[in-house]
Amino acid sequence: MRTIDERALEDIAAGAVIMGSGGGGDPYIGMLMARQAIREHGPVDLVTLDELEDEDLVVPCAMMGAPTVMVEKVPGGDEVVRALQAVARYLGKPARATMSAEVGGLNSMVPFYAAARLRLPIVDCDGTGRAFPEVHMSTYTLHGISATPFAMADERGNTVLLETVDNRSTETFARVLTVQMGAVAMVAAYPSTVAQLKEAAVPGTITQAQRIGAAIRTARLKETDPAETVREAADGFLVFEGKVGDVERRTEGGFSTGRALVGGIDGYAGQQLQLSFQNEFLAARIDGTFAVTVPDIITVLDLDTGQPITAEGLRYGYRVAVIGIPCTPKWRTPAGLGLAGPRSFGYETDYVPVEQRHAG
Amino acid sequence: MRTIDERALEDIAAGAVIMGSGGGGDPYIGMLMARQAIREHGPVDLVTLDELEDEDLVVPCAMMGAPTVMVEKVPGGDEVVRALQAVARYLGKPARATMSAEVGGLNSMVPFYAAARLRLPIVDCDGTGRAFPEVHMSTYTLHGISATPFAMADERGNTVLLETVDNRSTETFARVLTVQMGAVAMVAAYPSTVAQLKEAAVPGTITQAQRIGAAIRTARLKETDPAETVREAADGFLVFEGKVGDVERRTEGGFSTGRALVGGIDGYAGQQLQLSFQNEFLAARIDGTFAVTVPDIITVLDLDTGQPITAEGLRYGYRVAVIGIPCTPKWRTPAGLGLAGPRSFGYETDYVPVEQRHAG
Repeated sequence: MRTIDERALEDIAAGAVIMGSGGGGDPYIGMLMARQAIREHGPVDLVTLDELEDEDLVVPCAMMGAPTVMVEKVPGGDEVVRALQAVARYLGKPARATMSAEVGGLNSMVPFYAAARLRLPIVDCDGTGRAFPEVHMSTYTLHGISATPFAMADERGNTVLLETVDNRSTETFARVLTVQMGAVAMVAAYPSTVAQLKEAAVPGTITQAQRIGAAIRTARLKETDPAETVREAADGFLVFEGKVGDVERRTEGGFSTGRALVGGIDGYAGQQLQLSFQNEFLAARIDGTFAVTVPDIITVLDLDTGQPITAEGLRYGYRVAVIGIPCTPKWRTPAGLGLAGPRSFGYETDYVPVEQRHAG
Repeated sequence: MRTIDERALEDIAAGAVIMGSGGGGDPYIGMLMARQAIREHGPVDLVTLDELEDEDLVVPCAMMGAPTVMVEKVPGGDEVVRALQAVARYLGKPARATMSAEVGGLNSMVPFYAAARLRLPIVDCDGTGRAFPEVHMSTYTLHGISATPFAMADERGNTVLLETVDNRSTETFARVLTVQMGAVAMVAAYPSTVAQLKEAAVPGTITQAQRIGAAIRTARLKETDPAETVREAADGFLVFEGKVGDVERRTEGGFSTGRALVGGIDGYAGQQLQLSFQNEFLAARIDGTFAVTVPDIITVLDLDTGQPITAEGLRYGYRVAVIGIPCTPKWRTPAGLGLAGPRSFGYETDYVPVEQRHAG
């Protein structure tokens, strides 16, 4: 167990964007929310699964919806607290801890906000090993854990509790409710015992995010090449460097969807990379050939500031590096690829691990 | 307290269509469901509010959605039972009885089905005094009773529990969920104490429906004029007689909406009546002039069979009588008319009680 201070919080937020494939919401807003809650309610402890009892209940929490809207509609009220309490009330058992349903900008921070408010520790793991746009795309699903009871809350005070027959149905219902709640909702989902999480969760991802975030911070001080820093800290592969051209983006059906074109610079001059996203970056193609696809992670770095750029933050003119990062092995099984491989998102290609495409 | 036998059940179903302003779903399907449940699980007792304790919990139940779809999608599984149980579980208190959220074809029968399955009595009252298309249009709302915790269940096994800031928000969320559930859902709503219901409910409406249904049955045996029988049994007013011409009907947004034109016959020859409906008949205009509007009740009778016709059962060629029935005085207050008067449904007219329009 260790206590997360403000610098650690900032590092986790920065590192989680790298691991979140550009998704999971804006990290800055999330960090401010969490920091304020910690200042008001006291520090948050990060624990490992081994430090809890097997039968303890852990209730993950997250933001759901279109990150584009989240930027304009800052949460920070009771939404996530109400969602967590609704699940515990339904189960008739208090949560012993909370955790990230997915690592990702905002969604690495929402649990810290909730943990501070509810005086709960956070478990050092998550249920995706990255961020994904849909509820059922989780390692919980791969291990047969139900997303329900699943609670959603909006800033007006409405709360909804779902009990569905499968996790894909949770996604379907939660998505229409998210739209009804104004394209963003706070959710508590996938309540699990510690014993279940020892099988289903991706361990150590909060510490991993913190390590990557710290590397970025240190590199900035030393004026080291940020792309190289991130590539090394995240065990990733440099895929492309270029300047962002056209960005097409629409907010629809509770998602922020679109594509961006990046014209190559330096060693990539004359080539064009196309980034496709649905809340998260899902696929990168260079001159029409897949260079990285889900479930591997795609990170876009601003070459001028060294900061990661989320899918909704991508703008014309940015000079960027695109880095591919191997996903957790849980996603590389037939079941994992069936749930969140390239074809699940409509890409007509088999999955090839990023390290095979970019080795050497 | 009295036990409802099969004949009583049939009479209640028939009478409830008269009182339901053509809405609340198909009575025949509902009657079959309820009769089967009573045969399997035993008879259901009808009790008055005075026969219960003031602090007893009563949880009403109903079908929600487009009755047009209900005809093709017969329920009769666990949906309504799951919905009732979800509300009781959330409140941590068992239901002492159930009741009709609204009288209306199917919605007079759904509580009998649930009551038989759960071995609960039914209270002789309802929360609308008729049927209305939207959740918040109830006498509960007029008396400040929350529609939530509000549970919805579909036939696939999904259950949703809503906790909203007001009853109009319940309607908004429940409507998108109904669409998601296939345009029809079973709901448990407006959990109330007996003390609350003594203020908010419309008492005696199940007995009233039974009396009207019995009058129709007797009249059929005696070959008495059915329109005159219903008019007298329901204290209503004959508004029009004619032959149904064009019927426009669409199922959208979880409603069955449209209008029907009726060409006058006999004393009404040369006149045309237009019936507007949104699940229920809401307004009748003769040659452009309002003849009956919400919140008063509009009943359409098949002159050949003497049977009431629901809004979704109305077809070209039927010879019909249109009868206006005064609503409960609860709807005739400024608050009642604000919630469910003609202007709430977009009709540019003040409310004039049906007995004032058609006296003498």
